[in-house]
Amino acid sequence: MGNRADTNRQWLLASRPSGEPTMENFEMVETDVPTPGAHEVLVRTLYMSVDPYMRGRMRDAESYAEPWDVGDPMRAGVVGEVVESNHPDFEADDVVTGDLRWADYAVCEGRDLRTVDPDRGPISAALGVLGMPGVTAYFGTTDVAEPTPGDTVVVSAAAGAVGSVVGQIAALSGARVVGIAGADEKVEWLESVGFDAAINYDDGDVSTALEETCPEGVDVYFDNVGGPITDAVWPLLNVRSRVAVCGQIALYNATELPTGPRKLGKLVETRGTVEGFLVRDYEGRWGEALDRLSTWVADGDVQYRENVVEGLENAPEAFLGLFEGTKIGKQLVRVGERSA
Amino acid sequence: MGNRADTNRQWLLASRPSGEPTMENFEMVETDVPTPGAHEVLVRTLYMSVDPYMRGRMRDAESYAEPWDVGDPMRAGVVGEVVESNHPDFEADDVVTGDLRWADYAVCEGRDLRTVDPDRGPISAALGVLGMPGVTAYFGTTDVAEPTPGDTVVVSAAAGAVGSVVGQIAALSGARVVGIAGADEKVEWLESVGFDAAINYDDGDVSTALEETCPEGVDVYFDNVGGPITDAVWPLLNVRSRVAVCGQIALYNATELPTGPRKLGKLVETRGTVEGFLVRDYEGRWGEALDRLSTWVADGDVQYRENVVEGLENAPEAFLGLFEGTKIGKQLVRVGERSA
Repeated sequence: MGNRADTNRQWLLASRPSGEPTMENFEMVETDVPTPGAHEVLVRTLYMSVDPYMRGRMRDAESYAEPWDVGDPMRAGVVGEVVESNHPDFEADDVVTGDLRWADYAVCEGRDLRTVDPDRGPISAALGVLGMPGVTAYFGTTDVAEPTPGDTVVVSAAAGAVGSVVGQIAALSGARVVGIAGADEKVEWLESVGFDAAINYDDGDVSTALEETCPEGVDVYFDNVGGPITDAVWPLLNVRSRVAVCGQIALYNATELPTGPRKLGKLVETRGTVEGFLVRDYEGRWGEALDRLSTWVADGDVQYRENVVEGLENAPEAFLGLFEGTKIGKQLVRVGERSA
Repeated sequence: MGNRADTNRQWLLASRPSGEPTMENFEMVETDVPTPGAHEVLVRTLYMSVDPYMRGRMRDAESYAEPWDVGDPMRAGVVGEVVESNHPDFEADDVVTGDLRWADYAVCEGRDLRTVDPDRGPISAALGVLGMPGVTAYFGTTDVAEPTPGDTVVVSAAAGAVGSVVGQIAALSGARVVGIAGADEKVEWLESVGFDAAINYDDGDVSTALEETCPEGVDVYFDNVGGPITDAVWPLLNVRSRVAVCGQIALYNATELPTGPRKLGKLVETRGTVEGFLVRDYEGRWGEALDRLSTWVADGDVQYRENVVEGLENAPEAFLGLFEGTKIGKQLVRVGERSA
């Protein structure tokens, strides 16, 4: 049971943000390292994930997930190393992943952990392309958006952890894929990994750029952002187009109900469908997604990038960066080193 | 070939409306009664229909239908009597229906007409419950909204030609049905024909009334209006709810792109679906709908009302009244009398 520190740093929700979160909404405390009870496992964090959905949990309103209470530890997807296990499926030094905490250590029921196979790729990928964002992209594309060969597919937040995988899966299915992102570097990367075109929304008028890159309109729109970028895609929707709504990060920090152009009338004209989805509804099919994704990654058909911030102390900063949209790929925080 | 007048009155689109249409947008002219060519039929109008979709045709923008040209005759669903037929399926005095004109007489290809069976009900019903609005309600309910027993179904413009049939079909399927309409008289009528509850949107706050009448939220919303009424329904949408978008009459007279609360984020929370549809996509299944509808009407399971304006000269007024929302049921114009 070596390699255990004396204290456990963890981040609490200090206060609820109004509008964009700030450092004042977070507080780091030090406590004893917890001890696992029956069926429980003590995990030391190696990587933790920061994700846009967390903004919803900081709000005092029940959405699809319970809000976090002020003063409580904040939760995160974690890849970690087992320190001590009271569960038959795990032993010390195993690499595992689960919904744990913004902390050096956490205890949880063994049934809530999954083993990470280091042979499948870097263990950090279990928080990205081979984890929740990748699985979200997989089901959102294959089950909700359903691109077919020849379709024009537009993806917003295309250089993000979900969007980049969506675009590559859509391209594999024979669709023409256009990504929208916020930097020339992102555009270059997307075009290098199979996107047919990519648009930098900070570089001129998005509507004009979309008209140029989608001369035959848009058959599938995979929406990660909402707001004005989605407004620009809407007029280009084709007859029988499908919109998969995955996230609306442009609206998450709004303090009042955001307004925008009314969108439902267009759906009569197009006989279109808009569908929201949550990856947790696909829990029973997670293995199917991981099998496909890991094969694609191994074959080089799906590429991914990570942006790693060093140190648990910098986790809030990494989270706040999500709303600036300047980073490419999955945003991670490296909290500890592998002991082996 | 008797019973034919010397001249044919018909309405032209005199100018395109900006905002709400006015009488100045219409011009009546008198011409000779047309003569049918090969395969054509001359029809004398008995009833013509005015419908919200016509507002879209008056606009100079291609939507799901070609716009009407300024100076051209206006088109309408018509029930009429055959005066002269060069088509083997029709002979003089047959009652037929088709997409004809705002006119006393019109000529069209025989293949574009359907025979109206007077034994199935009043011939005017071929423009309402046994015509386009009824068939729209049928497919919008059974194929798009798909209410199941126990669902709470909300219908906007519930006392209209489409909404009143939607609600009654949904009630037949075992759902709990709540209608939204604009007059106490409409509320009373809806509650007398199988709606479990109805709300007068002019009588207090719609959101509050919806919360009271939908204590378990909304599983299906059939939207005929858009705008603020739809905004009031949105927060009550349940997990896996479906929205069928049939029309958006609240927006048809807008001169600028209307804005309102952004609606897509709610769909992630609910994993909900919004789908627009057009009845013309169901052309091949029209007979199925008419069989079901005429049985329901004959059995008293689906009731309907008509509001009849007398005289072709009053057709524009009848059309303009659609946007006031004061009438119950299908809006018709009686243009001529049956000759038999």
